[in-house]
Amino acid sequence: MSKTGIIALLYKHLPEQCVLSRAEELRPYECDGLSAYRQLPMVVVIPETLEQVQSTLRLCSEQKVPVVARGAGTGLSGGALPLAGGVLLVLSRFNRILEIDTQNRVAQVQPGVTNLAISEAAEPYGLYYAPDPSSQIACSIGGNVAENAGGIHCLKYGLTVHNILSLEVLTMEGEAITIGSQALDSPGYDLLALMTGSEGLLAVITGVTVKLLPRPETAQVVLAAFGSVEAAGAAVTAVIASGIIPAGLELLDRPAIHAVEKFKHCGYPVDAAAILLCEVDGTREDVTAQTGQVNRVFRQAGAFEQRVSHNEEERQEFWAGRKAAFPAMGRLSPDYYCMDGTIPRKHLAFVLNEIETLSKEYGLPICNVFHAGDGNLHPLILYDANQPGELERTEELGGKILELCISVGGTITGEHGVGLEKINQMCVQFNTAELQQFHAVKQAFDPEQLLNPGKAIPTLHRCAEFGALHVHDGKLPHPELERF
Amino acid sequence: MSKTGIIALLYKHLPEQCVLSRAEELRPYECDGLSAYRQLPMVVVIPETLEQVQSTLRLCSEQKVPVVARGAGTGLSGGALPLAGGVLLVLSRFNRILEIDTQNRVAQVQPGVTNLAISEAAEPYGLYYAPDPSSQIACSIGGNVAENAGGIHCLKYGLTVHNILSLEVLTMEGEAITIGSQALDSPGYDLLALMTGSEGLLAVITGVTVKLLPRPETAQVVLAAFGSVEAAGAAVTAVIASGIIPAGLELLDRPAIHAVEKFKHCGYPVDAAAILLCEVDGTREDVTAQTGQVNRVFRQAGAFEQRVSHNEEERQEFWAGRKAAFPAMGRLSPDYYCMDGTIPRKHLAFVLNEIETLSKEYGLPICNVFHAGDGNLHPLILYDANQPGELERTEELGGKILELCISVGGTITGEHGVGLEKINQMCVQFNTAELQQFHAVKQAFDPEQLLNPGKAIPTLHRCAEFGALHVHDGKLPHPELERF
Repeated sequence: MSKTGIIALLYKHLPEQCVLSRAEELRPYECDGLSAYRQLPMVVVIPETLEQVQSTLRLCSEQKVPVVARGAGTGLSGGALPLAGGVLLVLSRFNRILEIDTQNRVAQVQPGVTNLAISEAAEPYGLYYAPDPSSQIACSIGGNVAENAGGIHCLKYGLTVHNILSLEVLTMEGEAITIGSQALDSPGYDLLALMTGSEGLLAVITGVTVKLLPRPETAQVVLAAFGSVEAAGAAVTAVIASGIIPAGLELLDRPAIHAVEKFKHCGYPVDAAAILLCEVDGTREDVTAQTGQVNRVFRQAGAFEQRVSHNEEERQEFWAGRKAAFPAMGRLSPDYYCMDGTIPRKHLAFVLNEIETLSKEYGLPICNVFHAGDGNLHPLILYDANQPGELERTEELGGKILELCISVGGTITGEHGVGLEKINQMCVQFNTAELQQFHAVKQAFDPEQLLNPGKAIPTLHRCAEFGALHVHDGKLPHPELERF
Repeated sequence: MSKTGIIALLYKHLPEQCVLSRAEELRPYECDGLSAYRQLPMVVVIPETLEQVQSTLRLCSEQKVPVVARGAGTGLSGGALPLAGGVLLVLSRFNRILEIDTQNRVAQVQPGVTNLAISEAAEPYGLYYAPDPSSQIACSIGGNVAENAGGIHCLKYGLTVHNILSLEVLTMEGEAITIGSQALDSPGYDLLALMTGSEGLLAVITGVTVKLLPRPETAQVVLAAFGSVEAAGAAVTAVIASGIIPAGLELLDRPAIHAVEKFKHCGYPVDAAAILLCEVDGTREDVTAQTGQVNRVFRQAGAFEQRVSHNEEERQEFWAGRKAAFPAMGRLSPDYYCMDGTIPRKHLAFVLNEIETLSKEYGLPICNVFHAGDGNLHPLILYDANQPGELERTEELGGKILELCISVGGTITGEHGVGLEKINQMCVQFNTAELQQFHAVKQAFDPEQLLNPGKAIPTLHRCAEFGALHVHDGKLPHPELERF
């Protein structure tokens, strides 16, 4: 059916205010948080009821129209990039918290509820929802599930997958399925984890039951400065090996410290090659004991300066610089590109040194601000999109960093997902048998390949091409997307 | 190909000591831990190398011979019950611990290594593997993964799925696939969780990377006696709601207390309607603080007697009765049947009362000894298999208990898996669309339905029949198994 035909059908089945089809209405939806990729959708559908989501899916399924689901659009890997020939299904109106069950410590929420809103609603009961992506004020829980979002505190409290109990989803055919349960274990295959992080390729999330945790009694941060990234990397390993599981353990390298200090003046030691911020939380007794232990470990690992927050205000000050790191990059450079890879902790120093070498080779500065405790790197490549070829060089450098992560036994994503951004590196991460197995799973949920096609899992054809692929002429080839 | 033909082919491809085909050699393999179900396999293969596993699978795949993988055979849901026309693939010779990596706190092990052997090997480094099924001295990690095993401490430390990082598996075609990684998150679909608890239906596990945790500095147990199961149930909810996550929180009801006391004389209060055993672990400061808190909560919930273990010896004594509960049943009754269902904690008292009603209705005594903290029930039905019809009445009663769990929003398994035992209740737990989705996932891994067919996921045909199914003549119909 023609584009006009599809749009007419949608208007016929849905209230007028739920369908956007004029170019100026579509513009706000042309990209997600990774704005280097842009594409206007054929049409945007913003349903208000489950029945409307269902009839949109049924209609698209019948007409073989691809569907990209979108939450708040804060994703950083292009997972919600629209398709020129597809429907962008926006779930933002599903923004209600349906129940806070304090006895079972769970909340039932709609997918468009923001991450932070859940914790705010649970606050009167002394509870909160643990995963805390940087975008938590804006990002919505449906997208958190789709990308298996993390955050500073996921070292201790786990990723999204560890903090949800069940999902309501609709298949591409509009069939309603409940996945998981309120119990610890579920019979049958564990589709809950399979669905979490599946980047919108398997089903559309229409409801989430999240776990709520009691707010820790108190928290304290140790800031330690090191003369080399090697020493800081070794300190990270030593803290974990000592048996402490910090609530958060973040590393800033010298370029990041300087960028932050210029912008925020938060008093970070500018003579350090790297600083660590280590937060512990729990009961007062426990926090005091663990803070002492962290201090001892950092001292033994060669820290030349150590500070401990003594009250909530100081704790917030310690974090202020870390939290301002991304805006600070905007001062240093017209554009920056935030990478996301994960490596075994013990290779931290090696990988940071290799990244520095790559940075020099490509002539592009890189700052490192990241979740060191779980080995989740976020190298920020500074570039200027107005300089011809610089975006392409940046993306090539980013790809090299991801391949470096793979080479030490790591992976190409920690919490941002693969989306469109890292799809080529999936060919490096997985062998043919593994990719075929992924495709077989996709087939089991969406045999017509209509849900978010071209993202997350590369075709074998793409991988064959990637063997010799180089980005040129400022155009990234995405053959799977061109189908639509 | 004929049975003799298949066996001849196996002898041709494998060393003689790896193939068992005489009836007396097959006998030890006729059942797993659920001995109510027995079936001699066509042939047993006990490979010694990965290549032998691979060639067995390739051969079976080509000849369309079904394969049931088996670890230590301690499973309690008949998941490793052989097929008359199938190969029983025994992985017990893969019993080596390949690496203990203390820096990353992981161990790489073969599937036949026992659960306890991992903790023993990690002990010199102050580490251990957290999940602790009752059978941990015998059960092997491959089976733990296949059934997503739990244990007393999974309330705090999670099930198997939360304690492993990656798997090496072979598909039915003998293709090697690595699933998961040593990093916190993995790109692509989360096949690690999908594989965990898939009861041998998706692939054969040939290697496991498990997480190791630092041994807690100390642990303490609070024993509290209650005058009613309602009060004990409310105390469980109150402990969790107070923000404590106990390392273990177990409940024994009156029949269980009496059974244990007759057998073990461990001094449990025999006038109690229920007792709770609540263990907390961690640093000394933390344990002292939490023990106090647990005591306060239990007092407020109406405990009429409370004791705290003051040293390791006392702690072991407190647990001795709980650990002897299953053998104690053997004193009371010639046979017992251990059920396994999970319910939301807040329904504990209601469900225990309903179970008591069912027990009276069927004239079969039931003792309850279970993981109350995570709502994982283990009703033990006492019966005598030599009394005509009593096994069948027991199984019917067991089915009713599982359906009761489902009716309050729970599930039909906590840690034992579905296997053959609970396959009918899967029809109650899931609707047609959900079961179809499970079958589609199976199709994605094993399109010929050769891996452990007839277990875990019922056919839609079986569910249609189950609508009116009643067990009669002492024979449980298992139509899917009859194919082989």
